[in-house]
This record gives sequence, structure tokens and C-alpha cells, in this order.
Amino acid sequence: MKPSIPQGTRDFSPAELRKRYFILDTLRSIFERYGFQPLETPAMEQLTTLMGKYGEEGDRLIFKILNNGLHESKKKDELNNEWAKILDKPFSTPIVTERALRYDLTIPFARYVAMHQNDIALPFRRYQMQPVWRADRPQKGRYREFWQCDCDVVGSPSLLNEAELLCIYQSAFHKLNIPSVCIKINSRKLLAALAELCKGVDKLTEMTVALDKLDKIGWDGVCKELAQRGLDQDGIAKIEHLIQIKGTNEELLAAWELVLGKTDSGTAGIAELRKTLALWDQLADKEWTSEIRVDLSLARGLNYYTGVIMEVTTSAVKMGSIGGGGRYDDLTGLFGLPGITGVGVSFGIDRIYDVMEELAIFPVANAAGSLVMLLNFGGKEEAYALQIVQQLRNAGIAAEIYPEAAKMDKQMKYANKRSFPYIIIAGELELQKGQISLKDMRSGQQEMLSINEAIKSLKKLAV
Amino acid sequence: MKPSIPQGTRDFSPAELRKRYFILDTLRSIFERYGFQPLETPAMEQLTTLMGKYGEEGDRLIFKILNNGLHESKKKDELNNEWAKILDKPFSTPIVTERALRYDLTIPFARYVAMHQNDIALPFRRYQMQPVWRADRPQKGRYREFWQCDCDVVGSPSLLNEAELLCIYQSAFHKLNIPSVCIKINSRKLLAALAELCKGVDKLTEMTVALDKLDKIGWDGVCKELAQRGLDQDGIAKIEHLIQIKGTNEELLAAWELVLGKTDSGTAGIAELRKTLALWDQLADKEWTSEIRVDLSLARGLNYYTGVIMEVTTSAVKMGSIGGGGRYDDLTGLFGLPGITGVGVSFGIDRIYDVMEELAIFPVANAAGSLVMLLNFGGKEEAYALQIVQQLRNAGIAAEIYPEAAKMDKQMKYANKRSFPYIIIAGELELQKGQISLKDMRSGQQEMLSINEAIKSLKKLAV
Repeated sequence: MKPSIPQGTRDFSPAELRKRYFILDTLRSIFERYGFQPLETPAMEQLTTLMGKYGEEGDRLIFKILNNGLHESKKKDELNNEWAKILDKPFSTPIVTERALRYDLTIPFARYVAMHQNDIALPFRRYQMQPVWRADRPQKGRYREFWQCDCDVVGSPSLLNEAELLCIYQSAFHKLNIPSVCIKINSRKLLAALAELCKGVDKLTEMTVALDKLDKIGWDGVCKELAQRGLDQDGIAKIEHLIQIKGTNEELLAAWELVLGKTDSGTAGIAELRKTLALWDQLADKEWTSEIRVDLSLARGLNYYTGVIMEVTTSAVKMGSIGGGGRYDDLTGLFGLPGITGVGVSFGIDRIYDVMEELAIFPVANAAGSLVMLLNFGGKEEAYALQIVQQLRNAGIAAEIYPEAAKMDKQMKYANKRSFPYIIIAGELELQKGQISLKDMRSGQQEMLSINEAIKSLKKLAV
Repeated sequence: MKPSIPQGTRDFSPAELRKRYFILDTLRSIFERYGFQPLETPAMEQLTTLMGKYGEEGDRLIFKILNNGLHESKKKDELNNEWAKILDKPFSTPIVTERALRYDLTIPFARYVAMHQNDIALPFRRYQMQPVWRADRPQKGRYREFWQCDCDVVGSPSLLNEAELLCIYQSAFHKLNIPSVCIKINSRKLLAALAELCKGVDKLTEMTVALDKLDKIGWDGVCKELAQRGLDQDGIAKIEHLIQIKGTNEELLAAWELVLGKTDSGTAGIAELRKTLALWDQLADKEWTSEIRVDLSLARGLNYYTGVIMEVTTSAVKMGSIGGGGRYDDLTGLFGLPGITGVGVSFGIDRIYDVMEELAIFPVANAAGSLVMLLNFGGKEEAYALQIVQQLRNAGIAAEIYPEAAKMDKQMKYANKRSFPYIIIAGELELQKGQISLKDMRSGQQEMLSINEAIKSLKKLAV
């Protein structure tokens, strides 16, 4: 049997994982500094928790788990009825399947907050980095198992949260060293105002879907779509006017205010963007180079957003957005806890990985993991080498000894394949002198040192 | 709708996760020092990869994923046939279900090694810490989603690997500060010798199953079971004699040798235990307090072990084993790569957590996550506080500011509920002086400091 893994899933090799851990550890340390707390939820949720939350397409893409022990059930007729329903359409069939795999981190988070509302101090800031599963058709950059990384604050309407999330984005992309990052921000309230002014209040969703494509299909394409979706020429002209204005964030907000400020929702949207930017300005670090830009065409697909929305791209690589998020007003209401506002952003771990790989900006990692391998000469020399390898490990240095006194060329072949940066030779001569020879595998240089000297210089290199 | 999670699964709260991360980070750093490399495999495997690897009971307990798009399939008759088979018995039915959730980390590792045999440098040392899923009946301490943590070396027959794994166990339980740890070791070869001498070669498995219960049911119980399983009185007497011998590891091995040394397998088993212990003795650190004890009654359930086996318990808490492992000779053979030997051990993360919780030996963690919260007075004071909170974060201190200028008692109530160790007050007076007041929430003491002084003393506390 030739082994394989399911389509759209991946094994992560040691070398890939060291890079992934670099991203995840960087994000984790930033989240922690901003007071966010870790949360992990089970891979399986009740099917009823997930169904109906992601639209009809989502329901179809949820991986459902077959109930165990079906063959032991005595209710064969009932099972057969439910089975027939699955064949009919993919809805919840609790006696065939009652559990499903996590589809995103947002719904499980809302479910958690509702379940633990009495234990949680609000505002509650949590981050969560876990895999999710979707039965989407796999293609380049799209997997059936992929990682999401979310940080959210629930229970506080303050725009200081939005401002801090902008800082988290900037600080993260700064630490990861990703260049040419732009964080677009907008308010759903401005889109609502736009719909109102274009006499398309009922067409808000359709309008945003069309606007969202501006980057991809240009204004002509969007214009055509808006017309198809029923907006009149007057309305389209208004949108065009606003979209085409150029200027600084302040200039754009002032220009938009002249038009959108005629509605309550427009006034509120302008005010919340101004306040968010003012707070961000007080927090922001001069070192951070990513740009924050208000953009009226930013819509974000998900319908649950109600306030400020944001999205991150980099122009350094051809790639979709590497992050996004926004304010939502009633997510926990789905689980019986209404009136809780929240705001959150998400990092596209897989895409960030691809960007960093393409730009070759991962810190030069030690592919071997271990810094040094000791050759194994057997006998007394092995005993000597065993002492040394433990001394290195006690000093915090990742070290290995070849596990057998194999032929030298076999040991060296292994060392080369693993790409250890250093080799330690502790042979007869070294044993006599109570020293070791440290060989730099890149330069080929070799010097005899005391064990303490070797530890000292390897510790410097390990940092 | 009252939200819930599937039976046998758990949400992990921030406070629980900080403790779990402490365990996982400790183990990770030890694995890395011993040259082990991280590996992660997908949650889903092909059903064919898993079925038939864990016995009939295992096949039943594997969580199977329903294929998506069944309602779109045109082969309704075929689907119905397969469905009828699922109702009959739980075997592989590729058109209803072709994927399943990971059941352990060993089979995916073997599958990975076989798939990547051309890229991997042997010996390959990997560690893997991921959840696994089993449809077992949930009970206290037994979950349907739980974490496994394995480290294995494949491709090296050297007993130095066994010795290093013993060191990893000792070093880990030392770092985790778990007291009264005993690591029992035995060799499957000695059990084979025992079976041979008792004229029960064909009864090896049954004999080991009975012996494994010695701790639970005592010698009288084991004796009865051995008789039921068909061993004669003479054989049972031989086993009793060997089991009851007391002494040091060397004394035990010498005494066993007199009896078991009459068979090839017994001679080999004694030799491999002696060699393993001799190598371990050269590596071991005087600081490690856990005991290593040879124990002829140690059998370990899994049939794939062929050489040295080990198991870890602590007498400090009433609890089953917290780790175990051993040498296996042909795991990758299942996936078309025969002749690769391996040895590995596993850490029972959930039980280790429970032991540490019961003994209250987790390092006094900061339950809040953040070290300090700044009160929010709004206006100019807020602007001042925003500068300070960013300075703290830049200095690596986890800090939060209450996101609104809410009433003081509301802010303090939140601070108390979160149990921040420190509060910073940056009000009118502090702003005038360019200082801050740092309040120790435990002692209630408060002092006015410059921001740099505050950073200095908080940094000391953060370590």
C-alpha cells in the first residue's frame, strides 16, 4: 500500500515548523503584551452549533463526523430515514452525524463566551491560533486544513480597541519584517450611508459585494455590476465621485463628510473613523512602517460586521489579503447572550508564511535544529563524548551524539545531510588533553578548545 | 438554544492554557536540546491508513468523517449499499467515509517516514505534540479529544537511544518538579524467554496481559489469571520465583540471568538492559531524583514492542502511568518500508497536568496574563496613559489600559476580577509631575515613580 494523506491537508516537516513557530511565537508575544489571553476550543463542535452560521455554502463545506456505533443501533429504520435525508440535502441529521469539525474560530469563540458568561470578566480579550477545516476544492494556497489566528475583544464599545488592533497589526508586520504593508480601514456605517444616498438601502449587501471587487476588476467592472444589481445611474455616479477622490486620510474623511454626512449613519461612520485614527496616532510607534489608509471601497465579505472594518495587504508579493477584521455587534446573540459588542482581527498564517518564504525573510534558521553533533568513536572516547554532550545540553545548547561508533564517512555523511553548523571531535588526542576539537562546518576551520571555551563560543552562536 | 460542546471534549480557558503551555514548553525545550525535531501531521488521515492498526476495538473507536457532497452524487444505489454495510459493521466504506481523525501519533509518524524516506536523514529523531481523537466512553480523566506527546528515534538500533530517552524522562520530571517518580524498565525479550521457559511461547501475549495487572490485582490475582490462560503450575511457579526476587537493578539482572539466561532471548534481554543502564549511568545527572528500576512484570499493552520497554509512574498521587514507550522493530513496514527499527516514549500530558494540579506545583502563575492595568481617566490623562502603556509594552511588559473612562469602581471591579498584580494610576497629579503611581494589588501599597523606574521594577517582577 502506498501511503498518502487526504487531499488539501499537509504534513509539516521540521524545517517548515521552525518557520511556522517563528510566526506563531511572534504573534503570541505581541498578543500577550497587549493583554490578550489564550483560548483553545475543541476540534469538534456540536453540528447544531455550526449549521446555519456560514450561509448555505458554508453548511455544505462543514466536515461532519459520522456517529460511532451505528452498527450497534437498534433503530435501523430511523437511521435509514435520516440517511435518505443526507442524500437529499446536507442538513443536520443528529442520529447519523451530530458532531462536526471547527469551520472558523469566531463561532466557537462566541459559543464559549455565551457558555461562560458568568465566569468571564468583560471586556474579554482573547487570542486563538488553531486549525480549521473546510471541504473546499483544494487549490494553490487553499487547504482543507488550515490555521486561523484571531484576536478579539468583546464587551467594550470603545474605539480604543480598534486603535490597539491597528497597533497589533503594525507591530506584528514590523516584527515579522514584511515590507510594503498597507492596512485599509473603513466603516460599515459609511457603506450603509452610501446605500441610503443611492436609494439602495435594501441593496447594501449587493453593493458591498460589487465594491469589494474594485481591486480585481477596476471601476468599469464594478460599475457594470452595480447596474446589474439594480443601482440607478445617479447612484452609481455618486459612488464613483466618492471612490475617485484622492488625498490624505484627513482630506478623504472631510470630502466624504460633505456627501455622506447628510445621513446619520454617515456622520457616525466619519466620527468613528476620525476617533479611531486619533487614538491610533497617540499609540503608534515611529518605527512601524506599514501604512494606514481609509478606503471607501473596502467592504469585507462577512455580514456580521457593523462598524470599523480593516484589511491588510502587502504589495511586495502578489497575494490576497494577509489579514482582516472589524467590529460586530451581536455575535453571541446566536447563542442566547444578546447585546455584547466585539471587535477582532485575524492573521492569515498560511499566506504570511508564503509571503515570507517568497521574500526569503525568515531569520536565517538553523535547519538542523541542533547546533552541534559529536562524532562517536566508541569505547573510552564515547564515554568522554557522552559527558560532553550532557554538559552542552545542561548549558542550553541543542546537541546530539551520533548513536553508534559507525564508520567516519557514514557519520560525516549524516552530519552533512542534517547540515549541523558545528561538529565536535572528541577522539583519542582530545581525550588525553581533556579538550575537544570544534569544527565550523561552513568554513571548515577547526580548533582545539577546553569544554568550557567550546560552551562559551557555542552559546554565543545559539542566540 | 443553550450552547454546549460534544461529550468528552474540553474548552481550555486562559488560566488552564498557561499551565498546559508550561508543560508543553518545558518538554519542547528538552526535546530540542536532545536533538529531536518537531513534526506535525494532519488531523485527518485516509481511513485506510488507520483501519486495522489498532485492533478491532480501535477500528470501532476511530472517528470517521462523512464524505461531503453525498447529496450531489448520482450513485445513490451504490451509496445505499455502502450505508447498509456501515449499519452492519464499522468497516472502511470509501464512498460514504474515506477520511478519519488521527487516533494516535505513532501510525501517522510511521506513515510520514515511509512517505518521505528519500528526504529523511536516518537516524531521524522527532517529537510531536498534537491532539488525538477516540470515540471511547468519556469518564473522569478520559477524553474523546486529548493530547499526545511523543518522541521517537527511527533508524538506529543503538541502545544509546534508549539511554537518552531515560534521561529525557528524568530531566523532564525534574524540570516539572514532579516528586516520587519511578521509571520501570524491562525487555520484551525477557518476557519471551519467560514464555519459552514456561512452555507457553504461543501464550506470550496472554501472559504479558496477566503480568501487567500485578500492581492492580496482586500476585494471587495474576496467578489465577495465568492458570485460566492455560499456564501450568510449574510455569507459574517459575514466574513467581522470578517476580518475587528483591534487590538492586544489578542483583535482579544477575538473579534473572541464572534462569532466563538459559534461552537466547533471555541472554539478549539481560544484555540489552545491562547495556542500556550502563549508558544511562554515564549520561545521568546527579540532580535528577527519579528512580530507574528494572521490573520483570512490566509488559506494556501494545504488541509492536520488541526490545526495551519503559513506563513512568509517580507515587505522589493516585494515578495510572504518566508516560511509557519502548523499542519496536518494524512499524514502517505497514507502509511499505520494512527493516526500520525505532524506539520512542510518550508523555501523558493530561495526566501530568492533573498530577501537577493536585500537588499544586505549577509555578505561581500570573492568572491575569497581564502584569499591570492602567486606569483610564479620559481626556489628557488618557492621552498620557496611552503613551505609558505603549512604553511598557515596548519594554516587553504585558500591560492593558481600561478601554473607557468608566467610573472608578467599575474599573477597579474589573481589575479585581482579573487579578492584575499591579495597577498604574496616571491621573492629574501624576501627569503634572510626569510620573505614575504604581499600586501593588496584593499589599495595597502604592508609590509614585518615574516611568523608567516603574518599568525597571515591573521588569524584575515579570521574570
